[in-house]
Amino acid sequence: MTRKIGIIGVGHVGSTVAHYLVANGFTDELVLIDTNTKKVEADALDFREAMPNLPFHTEIIVNDYGALRDADIIISALGNIRLNDQANEDRFVELPFNSENVKQVAARIRDVGFNGIIIAITNPVDVITQIYQQVTGLPQKHVLGTGTLLDSARMKRAVSERLKLDPRAVSGYNLGEHGNSQFTAWSTVYALDQPLTKLAPARGLDLAELDSEARRGGFAVFKGKGYTSYGVATAAVRLALAIMSDAHLVLPISNFRSEYQVYLSYPVMVGRDGVLQDNTLQLTKQELEQLQHSADFIKSNVAKYLG
Amino acid sequence: MTRKIGIIGVGHVGSTVAHYLVANGFTDELVLIDTNTKKVEADALDFREAMPNLPFHTEIIVNDYGALRDADIIISALGNIRLNDQANEDRFVELPFNSENVKQVAARIRDVGFNGIIIAITNPVDVITQIYQQVTGLPQKHVLGTGTLLDSARMKRAVSERLKLDPRAVSGYNLGEHGNSQFTAWSTVYALDQPLTKLAPARGLDLAELDSEARRGGFAVFKGKGYTSYGVATAAVRLALAIMSDAHLVLPISNFRSEYQVYLSYPVMVGRDGVLQDNTLQLTKQELEQLQHSADFIKSNVAKYLG
Amino acid sequence: MTRKIGIIGVGHVGSTVAHYLVANGFTDELVLIDTNTKKVEADALDFREAMPNLPFHTEIIVNDYGALRDADIIISALGNIRLNDQANEDRFVELPFNSENVKQVAARIRDVGFNGIIIAITNPVDVITQIYQQVTGLPQKHVLGTGTLLDSARMKRAVSERLKLDPRAVSGYNLGEHGNSQFTAWSTVYALDQPLTKLAPARGLDLAELDSEARRGGFAVFKGKGYTSYGVATAAVRLALAIMSDAHLVLPISNFRSEYQVYLSYPVMVGRDGVLQDNTLQLTKQELEQLQHSADFIKSNVAKYLG
Amino acid sequence: MTRKIGIIGVGHVGSTVAHYLVANGFTDELVLIDTNTKKVEADALDFREAMPNLPFHTEIIVNDYGALRDADIIISALGNIRLNDQANEDRFVELPFNSENVKQVAARIRDVGFNGIIIAITNPVDVITQIYQQVTGLPQKHVLGTGTLLDSARMKRAVSERLKLDPRAVSGYNLGEHGNSQFTAWSTVYALDQPLTKLAPARGLDLAELDSEARRGGFAVFKGKGYTSYGVATAAVRLALAIMSDAHLVLPISNFRSEYQVYLSYPVMVGRDGVLQDNTLQLTKQELEQLQHSADFIKSNVAKYLG
Repeated sequence: MTRKIGIIGVGHVGSTVAHYLVANGFTDELVLIDTNTKKVEADALDFREAMPNLPFHTEIIVNDYGALRDADIIISALGNIRLNDQANEDRFVELPFNSENVKQVAARIRDVGFNGIIIAITNPVDVITQIYQQVTGLPQKHVLGTGTLLDSARMKRAVSERLKLDPRAVSGYNLGEHGNSQFTAWSTVYALDQPLTKLAPARGLDLAELDSEARRGGFAVFKGKGYTSYGVATAAVRLALAIMSDAHLVLPISNFRSEYQVYLSYPVMVGRDGVLQDNTLQLTKQELEQLQHSADFIKSNVAKYLG
Repeated sequence: MTRKIGIIGVGHVGSTVAHYLVANGFTDELVLIDTNTKKVEADALDFREAMPNLPFHTEIIVNDYGALRDADIIISALGNIRLNDQANEDRFVELPFNSENVKQVAARIRDVGFNGIIIAITNPVDVITQIYQQVTGLPQKHVLGTGTLLDSARMKRAVSERLKLDPRAVSGYNLGEHGNSQFTAWSTVYALDQPLTKLAPARGLDLAELDSEARRGGFAVFKGKGYTSYGVATAAVRLALAIMSDAHLVLPISNFRSEYQVYLSYPVMVGRDGVLQDNTLQLTKQELEQLQHSADFIKSNVAKYLG
Repeated sequence: MTRKIGIIGVGHVGSTVAHYLVANGFTDELVLIDTNTKKVEADALDFREAMPNLPFHTEIIVNDYGALRDADIIISALGNIRLNDQANEDRFVELPFNSENVKQVAARIRDVGFNGIIIAITNPVDVITQIYQQVTGLPQKHVLGTGTLLDSARMKRAVSERLKLDPRAVSGYNLGEHGNSQFTAWSTVYALDQPLTKLAPARGLDLAELDSEARRGGFAVFKGKGYTSYGVATAAVRLALAIMSDAHLVLPISNFRSEYQVYLSYPVMVGRDGVLQDNTLQLTKQELEQLQHSADFIKSNVAKYLG
Repeated sequence: MTRKIGIIGVGHVGSTVAHYLVANGFTDELVLIDTNTKKVEADALDFREAMPNLPFHTEIIVNDYGALRDADIIISALGNIRLNDQANEDRFVELPFNSENVKQVAARIRDVGFNGIIIAITNPVDVITQIYQQVTGLPQKHVLGTGTLLDSARMKRAVSERLKLDPRAVSGYNLGEHGNSQFTAWSTVYALDQPLTKLAPARGLDLAELDSEARRGGFAVFKGKGYTSYGVATAAVRLALAIMSDAHLVLPISNFRSEYQVYLSYPVMVGRDGVLQDNTLQLTKQELEQLQHSADFIKSNVAKYLG
């Protein structure tokens, strides 16, 4: 009965997700959770003062874990502000800090009896998603991370600007860790009805440069404003809508890969039951090696930090 | 041909306005102007990295005053971050700083030949709107401020929560300065098909308390998060849509009042030609005095600061 | 979990409701029921062939009463095509035909265990709504009719065109039967911040003429195209959204009035639990008489046809 | 300044386009033109009676060719009702009737000085689009037909249902005539990250059957309800939005092909200047023959009917 979404962590990213949902009436109830009570209550009040001028109504509930029990989706956006610390552009510097908080949050989600889908944005997202799954005990297919849905968007942005094309007209994926070991799987990328590997030389595009833009897009935004928000919030909401409407869309998100025994981003079909079906890409030998490398990197960190 | 909006000042408020517009495809072209080049370019990149996951396309142009020439609407959101300084909850502390910047901005808008509608959010908004009008030389009916459209929303939020009612089901206005001399014109406020002056005693509502919540709503949000964004951005976009679609809606916005010879908020009918028609409220004697007081306060500041 | 709406009767009105829902992603699942299997399957296919070019996904289910069990809302739009027969502009000519069909439909809804909210559009809507309530045994507050939400819109359209005003800027209600005994309760109507009873003489408006336009608006549309669709479909969807989002909006809809012991339109607060709270209008003596007359008329028909 | 769309022919298709635009506020002004004055005025009134319950305002203008002069886009939807006559499922039976009407309409559009983009839906759309271009003298890149944007959607619907996939996750095109000589260019179709030519045998899909469903989808809908509306209206609005927002999307629409000297559907990049750039598909020898056959068929009809 009706749509209900929870957001845990209402910083730059969480509040942008919330605003996008509220402004479009995408959810009927919205539960906002943040340890900074003053901040989250201020955002809730700000949203309520927006509603008289909006065409939709959203019930907003603040800092009530119990209200998450019957939520369709919980979006974890906590901790991203720690990205501040990363002089070396490495999302893993956030891990010690975020992983402890996530363990506590996940335990509370589990304890209230939440039985929906978790979408993690919190970084390093692949490890964090795994923690959520382990602590909550929810089925692996119900615990997901936005992963390289954002990086794929960054790649599409970079490619489309070179080609003066709508980014929605570029298809293909970035795969692996939502972090420095990720890569653009160029064998999957098409634009103007041609494989980009073929189009690039003809149009003078440097694939390595485009790949770097996709991987480092977040840092470009971060350096300019101290955080990222719109790209990742939009990715998270798109994923949430695909789940709630049982869309059966194929999206590159962080999901548990049995072949690597780790969470990493790879396209899967998503719907109300989370991951509905696996996709099989025809990756090149080099891409498979890059993916293995990315999986190994994530696993080593899982081992190091999570024992 | 197609819709074009400019935003000058891309801080918390300006970027929230921009996100709301981009996420909904409300404008075809969006010109973002900010002296903090790194910040505005980061926001533009962040929006472009959202677009592959959005159903709409918006052309974003950064820091090009020339691109404002044929804009339908320019939204001034600069300077609101200075609200930080107001220990005394007085938007006029921003005036010296903002007025100088606005004069320069207004001159550039004028010089590129802009001939559309200006919507000022910058505080103290009534004085700032007047500066925009004087410097640009645009018709008074084409230079507007969001004014108490936001404060009226705050009043509706406060009233509706007491009555467990959708805030859109409360009608009525806050009038005067978007600042401390404003007031809720209770004679105009209706809910549950009754005048609030009649409903309040029956339901145990304290009008003075509600009025204070409306006036001080911004400070409540400000204290919690250091700025306000969603309420005012939503008000500004609602006004912009009413103008672009020539809606002939009646909204309480800052407009030049010939009877007071000053900009202050009073409901008027708005459309593509800006202020289309005046409304006449049947205010009580006390409300008229409050409005005169508010007008006098604004005028004294105009005289003091703008000579 | 997620939103689910059923539509029974997929003629001009039902299919317009369905299109509006599908095009905006307002519901996650949509159950379409019609005895004309070919027609409803054609509409479902047409919607599915629209979806590749839409930004939303909606699961469409055809002619499966069992799928209605866990629906949030069922919208009854059957039978309106019979309006064709009314040479005398009387929606009651539809009653014998529609009431029999509605009894069967209501029994099936009851038998599958539906426990949500019913919104009746089928005419004569006040009697039909009563039949739905009686046959299903659902609480009176959970069985509603669009009633004069449409006629109030027609009145607002008529008033706003005379005043060159956005119709959303006119407030007030048409009351009573969604039929010939309805009336505009002018004491409730406001525009340009004035009671229309005061504004009308000043602006040369003839209230009787406006009232007639509201009441006969449907016939004007009907004469031109043989049916009505957009106005009533929009009213029904607005009501459905208010219910699903638990908006607590005050809307003039057909609801059971204990004071008259009949369904007729009078403003009430609506939300997820249907009618949440009654409103009390300060009607004039004449308006109260008109309302009594309308109630008597509906009751006499209920007695005659439903005995 | 602001968006303006004209629709010529307000039957099932034209009114569905209009409703979709009005319900979403996609255009600021909407000009409706139809020789059946009663019908078009009834639709306009019905839309105006919907607006009090809608969050957007649209100015609706009826039967005023002069109002089309500064429109961004004119959508030709006239004549589709004649599809009734086609016992043999051939859109060309409409040609004699529609071509005469289109010549008159095109002359009037030319005479008022319209200088925007024409989107033809009227069948047989490839020939009709050519007539619009010839009579108006507008640049070929500014006169377009929805063409196989709809048939491609039908193919995606058919493929996606077999694969239990969101139709937006299927890419690829139907090409050629929007009529019986069209074909699915299977070499362009991908789903689940595989070419459909490879996926089909593995999943037991019969490509000839799917191709037939795409080509004959319109007749399936037509047989069920006597017309088609939602699929084609959605395609037309998607194209209109891409043009107005200068999206640079690649869409399979009817455009003048210099290599065939005829209008037929082939993917091109579209934006505010109409066709912005050509795409080159790597079609198979058989597909190229099918396309040549389709081009020849259209040309022979152009020669026969238009001399």
